[in-house]
Formats: sequence, structure tokens, C-alpha cells
Amino acid sequence: MHPLAQRILQGDLRAIARAATAVENRTAEAEQILRDLFPHTGHAAIVGITGPPGAGKSTLVDQFARQLRTARQNIGIIAVDPSSPFSGGALLGDRIRMQHHHADPGVFIRSMATRGHLGGLARGTLEMALLLDAAGRNTILVETVGVGQDEIEITRLADVTVVVLVPGMGDDVQAIKAGIMEIADVFVINKSDLPGASRLEQELKAMLSTSPGNSEREIPIVQTVAGEGKGIDAALDAIHAVHSARKRDGVQLWQARLREMIRERILDLLPFSEIEAAARAVASRQSDPYSEVAKWMQRFQRSGPLR
Amino acid sequence: MHPLAQRILQGDLRAIARAATAVENRTAEAEQILRDLFPHTGHAAIVGITGPPGAGKSTLVDQFARQLRTARQNIGIIAVDPSSPFSGGALLGDRIRMQHHHADPGVFIRSMATRGHLGGLARGTLEMALLLDAAGRNTILVETVGVGQDEIEITRLADVTVVVLVPGMGDDVQAIKAGIMEIADVFVINKSDLPGASRLEQELKAMLSTSPGNSEREIPIVQTVAGEGKGIDAALDAIHAVHSARKRDGVQLWQARLREMIRERILDLLPFSEIEAAARAVASRQSDPYSEVAKWMQRFQRSGPLR
Repeated sequence: MHPLAQRILQGDLRAIARAATAVENRTAEAEQILRDLFPHTGHAAIVGITGPPGAGKSTLVDQFARQLRTARQNIGIIAVDPSSPFSGGALLGDRIRMQHHHADPGVFIRSMATRGHLGGLARGTLEMALLLDAAGRNTILVETVGVGQDEIEITRLADVTVVVLVPGMGDDVQAIKAGIMEIADVFVINKSDLPGASRLEQELKAMLSTSPGNSEREIPIVQTVAGEGKGIDAALDAIHAVHSARKRDGVQLWQARLREMIRERILDLLPFSEIEAAARAVASRQSDPYSEVAKWMQRFQRSGPLR
Repeated sequence: MHPLAQRILQGDLRAIARAATAVENRTAEAEQILRDLFPHTGHAAIVGITGPPGAGKSTLVDQFARQLRTARQNIGIIAVDPSSPFSGGALLGDRIRMQHHHADPGVFIRSMATRGHLGGLARGTLEMALLLDAAGRNTILVETVGVGQDEIEITRLADVTVVVLVPGMGDDVQAIKAGIMEIADVFVINKSDLPGASRLEQELKAMLSTSPGNSEREIPIVQTVAGEGKGIDAALDAIHAVHSARKRDGVQLWQARLREMIRERILDLLPFSEIEAAARAVASRQSDPYSEVAKWMQRFQRSGPLR
């Protein structure tokens, strides 16, 4: 076993941080560590928290962490930066939390912003969750800004997904696309002391009652004022109830993840010079991309064991 | 040749629109059409326009289109919606443009928001550009909000990439990450009647002069007030100058694109039942994902022609 993996299993915070950096940099060491740790994962409750910018997700996550700490839980927080090329630096919410939990080894916080290639953020977040899971964190809170496909992918790794809304967000519920309705296990209406909270709740209920596929499951709606610590217990109770009722077996997650990993690695098998020659033929219009790709597919298909 | 491809080569707008829908839905018909059209592409100037939300990109694109129309050019506009799951509906800028150019067949506008899977937006945008190129559009303006990896991928297909900034955007130039500096061929400071425009230009110049890799090429900075039509000619001149100086041969674009296409299709070759069995073994921790993927890679590698 890799020495870092050994230390992570003992909950060593510095080892977690070092492995996290290795994971972000996609080193060969990272794979060895993850492979060693994998049999020790599958115990943590992974809670995804998503919602539009300004919904108060960071404050909510902070309050969840405090509350769970009073129950002596060890917490991991993964804050996913949407990594807009136009907004630099660490997340503000992250910095605030750092101050609160700075001296508490029971709360491990990591923000994820590396996005080396498509899907990289979802992969990195999953691997970070595996590290924290193996390190014995009881609950892992994964905070994402719901801005794109990557963030929706990330919520798939969660056992429970919480969607945070606030009163008065544009056209209210009409602004929420179908994709979000499908991933929500719990709705939190944060800043519920603002005008329009009960209207938002009514609209959500109406939408949920008419939404196809939601007839079998009851989706709880909880009002909070995270800044004042109000409604935090009720929100955690709702999350816990969903988690107890249906713990995911992970088969669906791992199907998607294995396919993604195969996709990532297959390119290492293709000789660069051949890709370049094909690209030249396409760029000069001597060939077209569809014919070139079809040739490679025929090659792969010739390898017997795949059929 | 597919009948729609034939009509697209004649510039038929309804045929373009129908093919665009087929491309978005990834039908088999779409691939046939794109394959037929491919030899007729490579003539249009593709101009990418990116920048933070609120920089006035839509207005700028609208002004570029008007100006180019007076020179009797046929224009295509592809507006890429960042497809936040929290913001529904068509783009506002798009709607405004629709009113201006509604009766003008010389301006074809399409917004792209489908994002079925990772990288789907970049693929769809490239294929849409190929359709418009084959249909004889002289200039294709591709407007993206620079919010993620997808949007940076999209700018790679452009012959010239314009980055639009506005005075007073947060920490100004510090807010722009390195990735954007690397893709910019022309900077436009829009809304330059706002305070801080000359300070922003000075900061940009300072940053460009110290930025590694920029010593060989001069990156023009143009001030505009798109809402009043000011600076549009100067911006188009700068774009034209860059385009004349170095038309991309497309080899790099097609290398990346071919690799992506192979990645997409390789999964069709993997039997679903085997992936599912592996996912079950991983989810129950009888195996780990790294060992499972290594097995598939060995299979692929056994197929001789790949080595």
C-alpha cells in the first residue's frame, strides 16, 4: 500500500491534502493511492448542494457542518468553483468558512477549480470524495453552482441532492429548468424571511405535483434563513430521511464513470502521428472527419474480444 | 448527395434550419448531410466573440452583422447559450437581433443551447459552422459567454477570437484568467464611454507586454460603444487584419476534433452488459475502477493495427 494511502486511512489531514493535490494534477501516484483506498470507501453520506449564484449555498453548507459537528461527525466539504475564466481567486464563501473552521480538524475543506479538460471537474470531485470517504469522514458536503453539465454530473455522485432556491429569483420557479427538478431530492428555500417565500413554496409544490416521474416520491421543501441558523435542523432531518429511505447502490454512477474512464484512456492507444496525418487530410479537404473516424472504429472492431 | 445537402449548397435558408435541427438532435441524417457538405467548407471567416456577461457582446455582434451587410456579405450568427439550468428561455440579445434582421435573409441566426453530454456544445457549434460555411455564408460570428471549458473549446474553431471587456468589471484585468489572454486575437473595450476605459486599456497593454508568448504578435485593442455604433469599423478592421495575416490551416482543430469523435464513438463498441457487470463489481467493492479499466485497455491494445 502506498504510504500516503496508509496515512489517509488513519485520517491524517496532511496526507489527505497531499493526495488531493496529486488527484488534481492527475499524477500516476494519485491512481495508485485511489486504487489502494477504494476498498475502504462507500461508507460516507455524500450530500450535494446546488443552486443559483447568490442563493446562500456556502452559508448553508457552513451551518450544516457546524450542526453535524455538534453530533461529533467528521465532515468533508468540497466546494466546486464553476471556474469561469472571468472570475479568479478562491471562493468568498470558502474563505469565510476557513475562518470558522480553521482550528477544527473535524472539518476538512477543499475547493476544486481545476478543469483541465471536459469532464475533468466531475472526475476530480468524485476522486476527492473517495479520498475523504476512505479517510473516515462521515458526511461529505459537495457544493456546486448549478451552471452547467459538469455540475449536474457532479450531483450524480451524491446520495442526496439538495437544491437551494431563494425568493424573488427572476421568474421564480419558471427559471428552473427540468434537469434540476429531476436531480432534486430536497428543496431548501433559503433567505425565507425575504418577501415571496411562501409564494415560491406554493409554486414549487404545484410544479412537483404536475411533474412526471415525481408521483412516487415525495420531495420535501424546507424553509431556512441560513445566515441566522434558522431551519438548519429541519433541513438536515429532511436530508437524513431521504438518505435512510434510499441509499444509492452506486451501480449507475459507476457505469457512467467506467465509460468515461475508458473514453479518457483510449486516446493513449492512438499513435499521435496517425491522428496528425488524418487531421491534415481533413483540414485540406482531401478527406472528411466522418470517413476518418469510421476507419478507426473498424480497426477497434477487428479486435475480437470486443464483439 | 442528400437532398438537404444539395439545397444547403444553394443557400436555402429553410434547408439550413432543418439540417441545424438534425445536427442538434444528432440524427444519422445529420452525419450524412455533414459528410456531403464537408468538401464544400473552409471558405467562411469564422469570428469568435467572447467575454463576461453584460459586456454587450450581442449588441456588438449585431453591429458587426449590420456593417458587413452593407458590404453585401452573407452572415451567419451562432449564439451559444451557456445553458445554465437556472436560466431558461431564449437569449435576450438573440430576440433583439431577431427583430432587426427578421426580414433579411442575408443574416441567419441560430442559438445553440443543447448540451446533451460533455463536449456536446462544442461539437454542435462546429457542425453548425460547417453548415453555414457550406451554405456560402461569408462571415460566421460565434458568440459565447466565457463561462467554461466548452466555450473555450468553441473559440478554437474560430479563425479570429475577439474578447470583449467593459470598464469597471470587478478587479478589471486581474479578473481575466490566463486562458482568455491566450485565446484573444483582438480585444474590444466596449461601453468605452463609461469611466475607466483608458485605465482598462493601459492595464491590458501592460499585461500583454509582460505576458509570455505574446512578444511575437501584436494584439490590437479597440474601444467601442456598440449601442451607438461607435468603433465598429475600427474593430472590423482589426479583425480583418488578423484574419489576413494568419488564416488557420485547421490541422490543430481537426486533431482535437478527431480525437473527440473517436472518444465519443468508442463506447458504442463496448457491450452494455459487460460495463454493467463491471459497475456492479465496483459498486460492491469486489473490484476497483482502475483494475476494470486496465482490463479493457489491454483488450484494445491486443488489436494489432493500433500499435
